[in-house]
Amino acid sequence: MTEVVAGIRDEIVGKLEQAMAERGLDVLVATSPENVAWASGAAPPSQKTVRSRLAAAIVPREGESELVAIALEGPVVRTQSRLDSIRLYEEFVEDPVLVFADSLRQRGLEEGVVGVEETHLSQADYGKLAAALPGARLVRADELLAELRMVKTPSEIEAIREIGGAAERIAGEVCERFGAGSTEREIANFVAERYTEAGGDGLTMLVVGSGPRSAVVNAPPSGRVLEQRDVLRLDIIGTKGRYHSDVARTAVAGEPTGEQRRVYDLLHGVHRRCLAALRPGALGSDVYGIYRRAMDDAGLPPYHFVGHGLGITLHEDPFVNALSAIPLEEGMVLCVEPLTLLEGRFGMQIEDEVLITADGYEPFTEAGGLMRMGR
Amino acid sequence: MTEVVAGIRDEIVGKLEQAMAERGLDVLVATSPENVAWASGAAPPSQKTVRSRLAAAIVPREGESELVAIALEGPVVRTQSRLDSIRLYEEFVEDPVLVFADSLRQRGLEEGVVGVEETHLSQADYGKLAAALPGARLVRADELLAELRMVKTPSEIEAIREIGGAAERIAGEVCERFGAGSTEREIANFVAERYTEAGGDGLTMLVVGSGPRSAVVNAPPSGRVLEQRDVLRLDIIGTKGRYHSDVARTAVAGEPTGEQRRVYDLLHGVHRRCLAALRPGALGSDVYGIYRRAMDDAGLPPYHFVGHGLGITLHEDPFVNALSAIPLEEGMVLCVEPLTLLEGRFGMQIEDEVLITADGYEPFTEAGGLMRMGR
Repeated sequence: MTEVVAGIRDEIVGKLEQAMAERGLDVLVATSPENVAWASGAAPPSQKTVRSRLAAAIVPREGESELVAIALEGPVVRTQSRLDSIRLYEEFVEDPVLVFADSLRQRGLEEGVVGVEETHLSQADYGKLAAALPGARLVRADELLAELRMVKTPSEIEAIREIGGAAERIAGEVCERFGAGSTEREIANFVAERYTEAGGDGLTMLVVGSGPRSAVVNAPPSGRVLEQRDVLRLDIIGTKGRYHSDVARTAVAGEPTGEQRRVYDLLHGVHRRCLAALRPGALGSDVYGIYRRAMDDAGLPPYHFVGHGLGITLHEDPFVNALSAIPLEEGMVLCVEPLTLLEGRFGMQIEDEVLITADGYEPFTEAGGLMRMGR
Repeated sequence: MTEVVAGIRDEIVGKLEQAMAERGLDVLVATSPENVAWASGAAPPSQKTVRSRLAAAIVPREGESELVAIALEGPVVRTQSRLDSIRLYEEFVEDPVLVFADSLRQRGLEEGVVGVEETHLSQADYGKLAAALPGARLVRADELLAELRMVKTPSEIEAIREIGGAAERIAGEVCERFGAGSTEREIANFVAERYTEAGGDGLTMLVVGSGPRSAVVNAPPSGRVLEQRDVLRLDIIGTKGRYHSDVARTAVAGEPTGEQRRVYDLLHGVHRRCLAALRPGALGSDVYGIYRRAMDDAGLPPYHFVGHGLGITLHEDPFVNALSAIPLEEGMVLCVEPLTLLEGRFGMQIEDEVLITADGYEPFTEAGGLMRMGR
């Protein structure tokens, strides 16, 4: 186990043990892909696509932790899991929920207070787990887990900083290498290759939208050929060691128009004002207000959020939207991403990753002026 | 709406209405990505990745159907949905489950018998829906939906046949164009491009495993360069109009070794014997037995299934494994895919798609002998 991985394990298991002691939980059974990954380090590849292939990170307040996963993905999770043991189940032969129950019995926790994820575990599986452990008390742990994941540990911060910085460098390389005449798909292939070279697990979503497609939400790359004065909106979303990068840049092929400059400069000013408002105690809703008012004043279409927490998941608490009531805390990692989409014409977005510090924020990435593509 | 789309809609809604009448259901609230796609034609892009972004296909036994989806994906689902209306909710502002309840109330079904997916709807959301509709009776519809989806309608059969045939052609083109010296990633880019040209929505999983990587389960493409006598295992999994293709081929760069020929020919013989056993009334477990005995006799590592239903999801009932107890029926579409993975050396797989007919099967794709790559 590398130093970073051991650091993350000790920090996260420590946080979990302390939280369970405070809340009177005996054991946590995390089943959502994000909390399995956070608590164990492992991401069984098919848990998201085949719903019956459940996995669980079982972390008792005292004693040995265990990852439960599907046998055919044993070779993958063995290289990833930080927990004390791994238990594999045979698809179709064993019911994963009954294997979770058995793992708890082996730990003497069949009558314990068991934290489960009620917003992840299906109605059917919840009923099965409760029936298999009639002496246990199942309690909802969803909010506890979200809260624990919000403030990152030192090793998590390093992991996010590293892949975020790589995404920013790759965006810069795209502008140097590509321009009018390139296709969105060529750009996408280049980003994918560089991201892998940077040690990334892979891209989970890549937005490469050029010309009018830059105004399409979450536009995947197409075969479209860039023309002079096209806007390119690039959003590099992927993971390394299960932690996300999410960095967006806006560029123009060749010489920008006056309107393109004006919209970008306005967005860039909003971006800096949003960042300047970040500090412990600030509310996401206040930061969103800065963005929203500026867009309304300029008559530009706003988006329904201007930022979000970043970590094991792409979008997590604290959100930066009109309703955010969670005060920022030191150690949170946020994306701040003013965006405006002028349908049928062009869309622009400036997205940076930052760490909330004791007296403000520290940028992991830092956008400058409107980028020019050229080759 | 095109003819095929209208055909699928009428066929599926007709099946649903009849099944609800038979089972005493007043309305179906399908929430899993697969059943939303099947009943409505729509696949809101982020429902699989952001769990809180629920969608529902609401289909009453009588009266107008409705798709509920997140507002920011309105432009996407409008081009896809076949239901009578679309209702969009604002993320963070509205709770999708309460919007489902409201849609039922507007249909006068708040005291009805409501079919829900207990293996998809979370414990928390199920509780919320039950509380919002205190006069309704929620009943489990999971098995009913799986059963209805197993036997495909004529328009569904055409949709699957078409994209399956395209996947097979693309695999043939890969063998003609690539060979020793090519990289897995070059092959992957070519497949992705051709798949889009064939009208595909995109690849959902692409296996491009060469040399020892051909023996890795679900190997994504890497930068590995193919060498002479490398095995290439290619599995082209994607969708067109939400229906899957899943076709795998095995090839060798240059002249195969004697061992490679022997393993392939054995697998190909098993494949033909499995196919010959397909007919209405046959059990998947018997077909799996043919494969399993042959692998055991030859001392080759078997896989835990040798086929599966194919449709809106990649793996669906009826499975072809040791436990399959569902008799085959006319109109089912299956993949049959004998596979053997010789760890650290090479893996081979032959996967074809077939339709179960009144007296046997009809192939959508048809593998021949060991393919040779060469350029």
